[in-house]
This record gives sequence, C-alpha cells and structure tokens, in this order.
Amino acid sequence: FIAFCASLFIKPGADRRFEGMENPGYRSGSFDGLHHPSDDDDDDEMVDIAGATLDFSSTDDVPPLSTGYEDYSSSSRAAGMNGNGPSKLVDPLEDLVPGVGTYEDFNTIDWVREKSKDRDRHREITNKSRQSTVALLHSLCDAFSGWLLMLLVGLMSGALAGGIDIAAHWLSDLKGGVCLTDFWFNHEHCCWMSNETFQERDRCPEWQSWAELITGKSEGAFAYIMNYMMYIFWALLFSLLAVTLVRAFAPYACGSGIPEIKTILSGFIIRGYLGKWTLIIKTITLVLAVSSGLSLGKEGPLVHVACCCANILCHLFTKYRKNEAKRREVLSAAAAVGVSVAFGAPIGGVLFSLEEVSYYFPLKTLWRSFFAALVAAFTLRSINPFGNSRLVLFYVEFHAPWHLVELAPFVLLGIFGGLWGALFIRANIAWCRRRKSTRLGHYPVIEVLVVTAMTALLAFPNSYTRMSGAELISELFNDCSLLDSSQLCGYKQPANTTDTGVGNSLADRPAGENLYTALWQLALALIFKMLITVITFGMKVPSGLFIPSMAVGAIAGRLLGVGMEQLAYYHHDWVIFKGWCSQGADCITPGLYAMVGAAACLGGVTRMTVSLVVIMFELTGGLEYIVPLMAATMTSKWVADAFGREGIYEAHIRLNGYPFLEPKEEFEHSSLAVDVMRPRRSDPALAVLTQDGMTVGEVETLVESTHYSGFPVVVSQESQRLVGFVFRRDLLISIDNARKRQEGIVSTSQVFFSEHAPSQPPDAPPPLRLRGIMDLSPFTVTDHTPMDITVDIFRKLGLRQCLVTHNGRLLGIITKKDILKHMAQIANRDPDSILFN
Amino acid sequence: FIAFCASLFIKPGADRRFEGMENPGYRSGSFDGLHHPSDDDDDDEMVDIAGATLDFSSTDDVPPLSTGYEDYSSSSRAAGMNGNGPSKLVDPLEDLVPGVGTYEDFNTIDWVREKSKDRDRHREITNKSRQSTVALLHSLCDAFSGWLLMLLVGLMSGALAGGIDIAAHWLSDLKGGVCLTDFWFNHEHCCWMSNETFQERDRCPEWQSWAELITGKSEGAFAYIMNYMMYIFWALLFSLLAVTLVRAFAPYACGSGIPEIKTILSGFIIRGYLGKWTLIIKTITLVLAVSSGLSLGKEGPLVHVACCCANILCHLFTKYRKNEAKRREVLSAAAAVGVSVAFGAPIGGVLFSLEEVSYYFPLKTLWRSFFAALVAAFTLRSINPFGNSRLVLFYVEFHAPWHLVELAPFVLLGIFGGLWGALFIRANIAWCRRRKSTRLGHYPVIEVLVVTAMTALLAFPNSYTRMSGAELISELFNDCSLLDSSQLCGYKQPANTTDTGVGNSLADRPAGENLYTALWQLALALIFKMLITVITFGMKVPSGLFIPSMAVGAIAGRLLGVGMEQLAYYHHDWVIFKGWCSQGADCITPGLYAMVGAAACLGGVTRMTVSLVVIMFELTGGLEYIVPLMAATMTSKWVADAFGREGIYEAHIRLNGYPFLEPKEEFEHSSLAVDVMRPRRSDPALAVLTQDGMTVGEVETLVESTHYSGFPVVVSQESQRLVGFVFRRDLLISIDNARKRQEGIVSTSQVFFSEHAPSQPPDAPPPLRLRGIMDLSPFTVTDHTPMDITVDIFRKLGLRQCLVTHNGRLLGIITKKDILKHMAQIANRDPDSILFN
Repeated sequence: FIAFCASLFIKPGADRRFEGMENPGYRSGSFDGLHHPSDDDDDDEMVDIAGATLDFSSTDDVPPLSTGYEDYSSSSRAAGMNGNGPSKLVDPLEDLVPGVGTYEDFNTIDWVREKSKDRDRHREITNKSRQSTVALLHSLCDAFSGWLLMLLVGLMSGALAGGIDIAAHWLSDLKGGVCLTDFWFNHEHCCWMSNETFQERDRCPEWQSWAELITGKSEGAFAYIMNYMMYIFWALLFSLLAVTLVRAFAPYACGSGIPEIKTILSGFIIRGYLGKWTLIIKTITLVLAVSSGLSLGKEGPLVHVACCCANILCHLFTKYRKNEAKRREVLSAAAAVGVSVAFGAPIGGVLFSLEEVSYYFPLKTLWRSFFAALVAAFTLRSINPFGNSRLVLFYVEFHAPWHLVELAPFVLLGIFGGLWGALFIRANIAWCRRRKSTRLGHYPVIEVLVVTAMTALLAFPNSYTRMSGAELISELFNDCSLLDSSQLCGYKQPANTTDTGVGNSLADRPAGENLYTALWQLALALIFKMLITVITFGMKVPSGLFIPSMAVGAIAGRLLGVGMEQLAYYHHDWVIFKGWCSQGADCITPGLYAMVGAAACLGGVTRMTVSLVVIMFELTGGLEYIVPLMAATMTSKWVADAFGREGIYEAHIRLNGYPFLEPKEEFEHSSLAVDVMRPRRSDPALAVLTQDGMTVGEVETLVESTHYSGFPVVVSQESQRLVGFVFRRDLLISIDNARKRQEGIVSTSQVFFSEHAPSQPPDAPPPLRLRGIMDLSPFTVTDHTPMDITVDIFRKLGLRQCLVTHNGRLLGIITKKDILKHMAQIANRDPDSILFN
Repeated sequence: FIAFCASLFIKPGADRRFEGMENPGYRSGSFDGLHHPSDDDDDDEMVDIAGATLDFSSTDDVPPLSTGYEDYSSSSRAAGMNGNGPSKLVDPLEDLVPGVGTYEDFNTIDWVREKSKDRDRHREITNKSRQSTVALLHSLCDAFSGWLLMLLVGLMSGALAGGIDIAAHWLSDLKGGVCLTDFWFNHEHCCWMSNETFQERDRCPEWQSWAELITGKSEGAFAYIMNYMMYIFWALLFSLLAVTLVRAFAPYACGSGIPEIKTILSGFIIRGYLGKWTLIIKTITLVLAVSSGLSLGKEGPLVHVACCCANILCHLFTKYRKNEAKRREVLSAAAAVGVSVAFGAPIGGVLFSLEEVSYYFPLKTLWRSFFAALVAAFTLRSINPFGNSRLVLFYVEFHAPWHLVELAPFVLLGIFGGLWGALFIRANIAWCRRRKSTRLGHYPVIEVLVVTAMTALLAFPNSYTRMSGAELISELFNDCSLLDSSQLCGYKQPANTTDTGVGNSLADRPAGENLYTALWQLALALIFKMLITVITFGMKVPSGLFIPSMAVGAIAGRLLGVGMEQLAYYHHDWVIFKGWCSQGADCITPGLYAMVGAAACLGGVTRMTVSLVVIMFELTGGLEYIVPLMAATMTSKWVADAFGREGIYEAHIRLNGYPFLEPKEEFEHSSLAVDVMRPRRSDPALAVLTQDGMTVGEVETLVESTHYSGFPVVVSQESQRLVGFVFRRDLLISIDNARKRQEGIVSTSQVFFSEHAPSQPPDAPPPLRLRGIMDLSPFTVTDHTPMDITVDIFRKLGLRQCLVTHNGRLLGIITKKDILKHMAQIANRDPDSILFN
C-alpha cells in the first residue's frame, strides 16, 4: 500500500528535480522589483542580508525553498479566483501560464491564496475520488501522505540527531586524548570496553591523553602544557574546518537558524535556507563547532537541521512541494521535532513550536507535530547516543521536596536570569551590529579562529569550562550521593551520623576543601561563559544559544544552592529554616537550584514560558518541581521584559530587517489605516490599472515605471471603484507569455480584466484577457479602521497587502512592510531597517 | 500591595452588584429582534433552547454572563470608532449612551469590537500611568490583575473539586452502609480510623452495611435483599434530590456543560449559564448525581464548575467584568483548570482547553491557563481527597515495557473505541432528539427516577457496576501484584517458581476461578454500561461523559488484555510471541490494555487527540506508554471520523442549534460569497440607512419593519457606497435616549451619520448625530470571494457579520447565521435548525 502511495507521489520528474535543484527557479532580472536587493542567479553576493552571513561566496548549489516554477503544472487555481461561478468546476488548463502564483526570493507569500489553492486541490481530489477506485485510493494516499511525511521527518531527524550526538561526543574527547584500542571510541566508551581494572572512573589504560601518547608522561608541567597545546590545536582545527565549510558550501548554515525559521514560517521566502546543502554542511559543521569547545550548543541548530529534513522530504509529496502554506505546516512540526530530539522532550517541543517559532499552527498540525516529535524521540532513543537509554545527557531525578521558603532564592534566580537575558541581548545585538557595520564582518574566518583560540586558552585551565556545555550542565544538575567523587560533592563526611540524630545519609553536610575549590572555579567559569557567549553567538559557525544560557544559569543556581545549603547547615536555628530544616536533614538540593537557574537564564534570553517549563518538567519527570521552575521563569520574563520586550530571536530578526509581524505583541498605538497607507498625502496618486481601456504597452510602462509588487484594478480612473488586484510578477509573466504564445498580441492590444471583452474597432488587434490572474477578492479595510484591528487582520490571515477604501472608493494600499515601518517609527527606530516585503 | 490593588479594583458598587445581579441587565421588549425567541424578563420559559433544558422554571436569580449595562460607564469607546483622528485622544464622555456596545441574550459578540475596546482601555491606562504615581500603580495592578484572577480561579476550583471528591466519596459509600463511629467518614476512611484488627481490607467492624444495622445480620439472602433495597433507595433519593434542585434553582446546571461552554467561548452569550446559582446547584447536584450510581462522571461538569468560578470572579475586576472578549480568555483558562483538577493533569488540561473548547486562545492565555491549572492541581493535592497524595483515583504505575507486536491489539482497541464512539454519538443524539420532540421531555423528574431505578436494579448484583465509575477504572488500570486480593488478580499461583526458570514473581500466570468469574461480570458490565450511558447522558442532572466512556474502554481493554495474557501463557511458542515472551516471563500488562482501551473510547466519543494522550501520559508518568496510547487514539479518531466527523460535543451543539462555527473543519464547498449573502436575488433590496437625509421617524419605521440586528450605512441609495454599519440595539437605544434626554429630538428630526451636520432649513428641528455609534470599519468582502476564505475570516477574526460589495458598491450582507445555514444546506441538513445569530 505504501509502495503504491509512493508511486503515486513520486512523480517521474521528482528524482530529476531532486538532483536538478541547482538552478533555483525561474529568475529573470526583469521581474524583480527594486525592493529585492539582489536577485542574481545565485544567492552569494547578497551582502548584509541575513546578518553578515551572506558576504561570502559560491552557493549556486543551494536548492530553493520555493521550487522554481518551470514545472508548475498544478491545476489548483481557485474557481473563485478565476471568476467562474460556483457550480462550474474550473478547467485546470484554463489560464495555465507557468509561474503565475509563485513567489520570488525574499518575498512574503500570500497565505490566503496558498490555503485557498490547497483547498481547491483537495476539493478536486475529493470530487474525483467518487468516480473511480484508483482516484479513491489516490485520495486516501493524499490524506495519509501528511502522516507518512511526519514519520519520515521524525525518523530522519532522530537519526541525524543521534549521529550528531555520537560524533560530537567523540570529537570533543579527541581534544583530550585518544582511545588506543579503537580510535573511534570516545573516552567513556573506551573505558567501558576496557578489560583491565583501574582506579578512577575515567582513567583507564586504554584511553591516553595526548601528552601520554607523545611524551609518555601523564603528569607534570610538561605533560600539562602538551595537553594544553593539543587542546588548542584541535579546537582551532575543528573551528577552522567548520567556518571554512560554511563559507565554501552553505553560508546559510551558520548561526542558530531559529530567527530565520521564524521568519520563514511567518511566510517569508529565503531560497536555499532549508536546502540539502545547508543540511549537510550544518550537520557536519555543527559537530565540529560543538567539539571545538566554543561556547555554543547544538539545540538551536538541531531545529534548523530538522526543518531542512522536513523541507527536503516535502519534495517527495506533490501536496507539500507545490504549496507554500502546507509546507510551512510541516516545517512547524519539524521545529517541534528539533526540540524533541535536542532535549528528549516531545511535548515540550510541540509547545516550543507553538509558542516560539510557529505562525500558523492549526490543530491538525499540533497533532502531527506531536506524532513526529514522538517518532524522533524514539528513533533517538533506539540509537541511544548516551548509552543510558536516556534522550539527554542531563536527565535528573531529585528525591527531596522543596519548601515554600525556598521560593525566595528561586525568585532571586529568576531576577538574575532576567537581568542576564536582557543584558545578553543588548550586548550581543550591539556586537552583531558592530560586526555588520565595521570591517570586522569581512574576516569571518579570522574572527572564528581568534574567538576559538581565546576560548580554548581560557577554558583549559578550568575543569568546568574545559568540559562541554552539556556535560557541565549535567554535572551541575546532579544531586550528590554519598559516594560521588566529583569535586562538587566534596562535602566533609560527618564523623558519626548518629550525632545528628537523623540517619539520613544524604543529609546536608558541611562543605569541604574540594567543594570550595569547585565554587571558585565555577565563579570564574560563570564570568568567562557570560562574556564569551556574547561574542560567540552570531559568528559564522552553527551556534545554538540554549546550552550556553543554561550553563550560565546552572552555575549561578548551583552557587546559590550550595550557599543556601551551607547557610541551612550552619544556621539551621534561624527563623527561616525553623520547622523544616533541622541539622542533618536533607533540606536543600543544590541540583534543583542549578536547574531553576538554567530555566531562568534560558527564559530571560528567549522569553519562552510554557514550553520552557514543560521541557524542564520532562527532564525531571515530577510535577513537584514545576512550581519553582514556573516562579523563576515568570520572574525572569517579567524582569527581562522590563528592559525590552524582544527575545534574542526577535532581536536578530529585527537586526536582519526581516519582515516579521510579531504575533505576540499587541499594537498599542491609536493610529488609523489612513495614516499608514500609501500614497501619503504628498505622494502622487496610487498606481492603478483599469479593468478595460488600457493597452499592453501602457500596462508595461506603468509596471516598469514603478516598483510595486502589485496593482489594484479599478472600474475607471474617475470612479476608483475596486475590481480586483494583480501581482506584478503574475502580470509580467502573463504578458510575456501572451506576447510569445498568443497570436496577435502587440503593444497596442487592449488589456481587459472584465468578464466580457470590451467592444473595439474592428481593425484593432485582439484584446488580452487577464481576468484569470486577477485576485477577485482583495482584502479591503476602510480608512477609519484603527491600525490595531488592521494589524490583527494581517497577522491572523497572513496578508501581504490590504487595500484601503473610503466610502467605497479606493484610496490607498497598506503592505506588511508599511505596517512594519510604521511600527518602527512609533518605536523610534529607523523605518528603513525593514528591508523586505 | 495586593490590598491596595484590591481597593482599586473592587469599586464601591462591586459588592452591591454582586448581590444585586438579580435583575439581569437592561431588558426591554422593544429591543429584541425576531431572532431572539424569548427575551422575557427571566430565562425560564425558553422552551427548546439549549436542549430540553430550559423548560422548567424560576431562574429570575441567574446572574448575567454579560453584565447589564446600567452601570456601563467605561470610557473605552475606540478613538477610531468614534471617528476622531489618531492624534486626538477621545473624550470618554462623548456619546456616552448607556447600553451602547452591549449585547442581548442569545446573541453573538463582536470579537473585533471587544478586543478593540480592551486595547483602548489599555492604551488609556498606559497613557495615564505616565502622569502620576497612583496611575502608575493602577496600571501595574491592572497588568497583574489577570494573574491574581488566575490564582483565585485556581484556588477556588481546586478547593471545590476537592470538596466534590470528598463528598461524592462519602455519599457513594452511604449507599452501602454507614460508619458507626463517625457517620461522616467514608468506608475507607472509617476503616483507617479503626483501632480493632480485622481480616479483610475493607471489612472493619466500625463500618456497617444497612442490613447489619437494621437486621443485625450481615450474610444471607435477607441481608442481601435489604442491602439491595437500601442501595436503590439511596440512589433514588440522591437522583430525586439532584433533579429537583436542578429544576427548581438552576436549569442550566444539567448536562456536562461543555457544548455550551464551547459555544460561549466562541462568542455566544447565554446569560446565567455561568452564574452563581448555576455554580452552587451544579456543585451540589453533581455530588448527588455521581453518588446515585448513575452512569455518569464528574469530569465534564467540573469544567463547567471551574468556568462558573472564573465568571463569578471576573466580576471582581473591571477589566474582565466589562469586556466579553477578555472574560472569554479567563474562561478558556478555567476550562483548563477544570480538566486539571478532574484528572490531575495540568498540561493535559491546558491542551484540552486549546484543542477542544477554546476558540480564541492567544499565547498569553496559554501561559496563564498553565499557571491556573497548576495552582488548582496543587490546591487539590493539599486537600488530598484520596488520601494518597495523588490527584486522581486512577494514577497508575506500570513496570513492564510493551512489545511492538502488541500494537496490533492496541489498534484493535482503537477500532473498538472508534466504533463505539460513533455508535454512541448516533444513539445518544437520536435519543436526545426523541426527548426533545416527544412527550418524554416533559417529565424530566420521572425520566431521571426511572433511569436511576433501572441503573440501581441492574448495577447492584454485579460488583463491577456497583462500584463507582472512577473506582472501576482504577481497579481495571491496576497492575496485579502477587498479594493482590481482588477478583481481577485471581491467578493461579504457580506451584514452584523455579519450574518456570525465571524467578520473576510478577510473571504471567494462568487464570484461576476468580478471574473467570470476574471476566464474566466484566463482560456483563460492559454491555450494561454501553446501553445505560446512551440514555443517561442528556438527562436533567449534571452528567459527564469522560468516566463512562473510559469505563467502557477500560473494561474492553482489560478483557482483551487478560485474553492476550492467557494466550501468551498457554501459547508462548507461537511465532508472534517468540523472542519476547517466554513462559513465566512478565510480558503482557492487562492494566495497560485497560488504559489504552479507555483512551480509545474517550477519543472515539470526544475526538480529542493530543490532550487525551497528554492526560493519559500524566496519569502514567512514563513516555514509554505514549506510543500505544497514540496508536489507539489515532485509530479511534480515524475510525470514528469515517462514520461522522462530529464529536459528541459538536453533535450536541448542533442539536441545540447554537451558532458555532467549528474551527477545526475546513469548508470544502466551492461556493462564493454572492451565493450565501442576503438579500437573495428574489428578495427585496437590502435595508440600508443613508448617512444623511433620513428622519428619526423613518429610521424607526425601517428598524421596526425589519428584524435585522444591524444596518449598513451608505452615502446614498443610488450610489450604494458603504460608509459604516450600525447595530439595531445601539440605534434603538441611542434614539430612545436622545428622545428622552436631548432637546428637540422629534420624529421629523434628521438623523445623520456624516461628520458634519447637513444643511437644513432654519425651522427644522435640530438634527441627531449618530456617527458615534456607527462602526466606521465594517468588514467587507467582494461578491467573488470564495466562501472558504470568507469562513476563514469569520473564524479567525470572530466576526458576526460581513458586508459584500461588488466593484465598490454594497451588494448584501453575510451573517454567521447565514454561513451556518449554508453549511447545513450543503450537508443536507435542515438550515432552520440554526436558531441564533
């Protein structure tokens, strides 16, 4: 059955097009408006778009997100759009000009049109399915293709995530040494395989540090320096490889990808951002970047990787290949998959997609995302990258409950997280702006190498910075058991437990020498992480922000937790500890503080709320700890919002000038549509087409003398009564096509949008009917519509533009860009920072 | 600080209005259209609206959902709506006619207007907050009032749910006997308190069955009959009390309430549905109904109870009291709270609200619902109604994993669930329709008594139907341990465990005598439950559907599970069991089958997906079991959807003719706006007002000669160019008010909607300016707009009506009712079943 389905979907041309995506669609200079800063045949010279990302070269190989329209042969133009009556079914061959209804790069899609197209397609399949059994099967396959696609996305992303985990683990350990028996084993695995007995957990004879291997000595100053050098060498090598690969093959593979994915999901088109080259290069360079020891995580990029998988797999199914809106539903689900494999939290992933990245998230997608997230999580688990049948390195189980008094330190952590989040965003944005505007941006490779060298130099001496971010978090979340040998659990053993009166072996104990050392190192690590992350995020390597943020919070939380613990130990007679924390009782869990701190910092940076708490809940598995997490996350969000309402992703979106209409924020200003619409009072009148009476030449002159991406069609210039709306691209393609294919179309041919051809003198050339490409149901608002309502309409319906009328006469037009510019103006920002439409 | 906030919110009049809500708003017969079947001074005689619910009397005391407008003194009319420029701030006293902007009972609110009102209010507070410290504090309090409200809703609902649990437990046990030491202890509690030793777990000397108490004998036929009689007596007494209370004080308290809450959340107004009388009566009668042993659950009604709490608490805060849209945000959160306390699943509750009941669910509400759901869960836990620090009776912990082969029986359960769901919906709707259309509906008390008598008669002999639904489910979900004495765990002890080769004491064992008895009883219970639930749901007592559905599924699942277990035990050498299920191994968990079956049946009836799986996940706490649950739920939904796409709640909404535009279903037909709009081609022209030139008398005549709830305003009858839209209610109230208050307004006074008064002869009476009540930004679509897009707009923006234009001229109007009628027509249903607008 599945094979049959597949044969129906994978059209003969699909494989070819899979290989042949090198030519990213129909691209002719004549069709691009002035607003598209670069529409060359390849994407590589788009300086200053998408961050300072794109200023390096040779990406002619990037597959388009939106497929080119050469083989656009769908019959899905709407019945309504074609202006036919409801009873007549539309002839799919009518008005079939290839390319009409597609979009250019760096443009926003028309959600209404796309969704309408899909409904038409669906209606057609349903109608056909009543006629024959094959069509019925086809319609069934069509209905199940979404689920099949989700399954594939889940499997592929889960497998990739497992591979990345294993590879990153191995490469990270390679910085320290190598496994003699089998060099492809990482440190832990190598020691597991060892047959010999050895004292310390992680010191098996098979695993040799570089100093041991080269000089034969494992102790002493020289060995230390040797290891230090090798550590730096490997770090530099990995980061050099990473940045070179990104530069050479897929400039879009850098960064976390979440800002761009948010923008894409909101309807923007960035061709190649989710293509196969991006996928391959991002997967490889992510491993390299994580292994290089830079202060970055793999969680954000995993979302990008999952979205690339989804986008590529979409090409297998006509339904998703041909419809930008449907494809975005799949991408929303893929974002959930990404977080699901990153944190082993399927429900949290779905909520992350819902809360943080998605724009259009119907309930059907919710259900499918959940399915895909689960499939991915189980795929990852069957790969078992951490060898403990857990999905993440930092799964935790706490045993002690918390007390209401502890909410005070938790709220404190929330405040810290909020402050750090706000500060981090400011500092990082300032740094990125500097990178964009100064010469710094021209030397991405050198930048990466310098930062790596700095990181490695400073990180090696401190064992908490030397280990990877995920390992650090895992250690900080950990609850000390009696036999724990790690430095962080360096408590003094009580002389005799009977003294304390309580036989609890896990009771709070006084801190020992080791613990104090660990605290100092942690404090230094905190400062180091806080500073280095600011300059790391935004470099030309794949870099996620979750792990560094969580690490900062976890360190702060652990410090506070140990502090509280010692306070409770030495001052258990204080009022605040009375009644719940007697001497020797186990009342403070420093690991929980670390977790709360991690949530607070991550919340401060990203402004996630529900999804963050649910992700953390899935890590601990106990409802018990939701309240502390919630208190900290809430505080963190409020504190951070007081300094600026944007999370890091929104800030980067704005930095890059993407046209993103934030769905979360309310439009608070009291302006009206008439204040925002174009033309302004001083501008020349709106460029409109009339439904008849214009010639092909006149239309072409009008289009060429302006840069608008669409034109309203009116009954006549005098009445200004609105008939419809045509897109520039559709208009040009249609005229171009008609001139080539249709007999007798010359510059003096009349163009008409009305239902019947106008009467003409008998010697006139045949008129050109363009009603088929006209949108007969353009959205209109009146000039008195408050902008808050207009913005709401734009958001909820996903509009590109909206026409403004006054008492039934066409007055002007509002585009998404106009709204964004208006919002920038209100917020005292430069309206010209909005680059795209 | 909170006290200060409270003093700001609880206006002097608030307490008075809290007491004085007996007069449900401004209600004058002159303002109601023909569409409101009854708008009498009290709600009681509305026969056949809202089910057959309303055919009993005396509800003059029901507080209105939408507050009356006597004290409507908000300054929140929009700047834009008043037609002022953007820079001018609106004078709050301008055009302040009380009642303008409110709604009548059984009408749909205008979401756009309500949200705009709230934004204006917010803007005003923000602007004021810059001026003084008090205003700043006020604005802070305003921002936090939502959280405070959520806290209160959580606390109140959690406490109520705890009370209901405890009371229902006690009353249920009262059917069997009484605690001699303290009669207010339930059976379990009574035996806990016992000091004496006793053999069987639940047979302590303090607890005496009625036979023991009256006849002194605890065994024998006579004692059995005595207990039987007492069981029936109590059941009848409880149900009689329940139905009488519902009849006498709050007819809205019957049923599950979820269909109505869905409708209310979509913007409909049913005054008194969420009032304090409904709350009190529903809480009491819910306990009685559950205790009477009828086949109903408390989960659905708990959602209603939580929503009542939320609605009542909304009156404490001006922000929520005065705004229908804001209040619905709170109600959405309350629905989450209801499920959270019903199942102890906060995340599941939030997703339930999102997936099943909510219409408008912004992200802010998501976060707040989560908070409220958590508060409620923790309140409930601190009350600890089950004495085991769990939130639900049927928390489960399984220890064995499942095998891939088991997916086949799970899918089978899904098919069973889907079939049962589809059948149940059909049967129940047919029965409810019969109740509405025949004389059956006139004797609700007798109906309840007869059904109770039948239930009690048939339920007593079978121990699985005698126990309450929740207890039954709890027992079915339970995993048998070695020492379990319940009938369901009546396995034969293996002679010597060493025989089997595996020392696992929990291994699969052969079924014993007891288990076979239990299976027969379960099979009978299954048939009984399936039949009795059909006629129980929809009676005039509070009745939830979750528990009966889950019980049916759990029985079926347990039966299948035990069957599989025995199959695996006796035929462990079959191919399907090879490799994972050797003899004596613990490979099949019948409790898991029960759980999967419960999920499947609940899914079939309600068509919940994600929320159902997450609720079940929160019951088990293990990600492990999500896959079986998901497989069963998915299958169940697909199977049930094949028979009809409506869940039970949508079916009841349609049965009652509520105006509910299903957000989940796509509009598949290819009609255009012009096919749906009024007037039809044969109808008389659209009734419009002109912006000037009409007199007060003419306007009144036009309004009275029609029954429309609103009128478009055009420039002139000839041009039909649209200016705005006025609501009938606002128009009548304004004219009425002007006639009373304004000097010189007589029937010949001119009415004008334009900005400047028209020139008039000097002796004419002063004109009446009504621009203030005109909506200057009515929504329009063109006549060629496909209906799928139009429906999308209605859904997403929450419109009541939309005007249709052709080439800039007003052509007609589409209301929500028109759309629903059109959809009914397409589905070959009676379009007149849509009763409300």
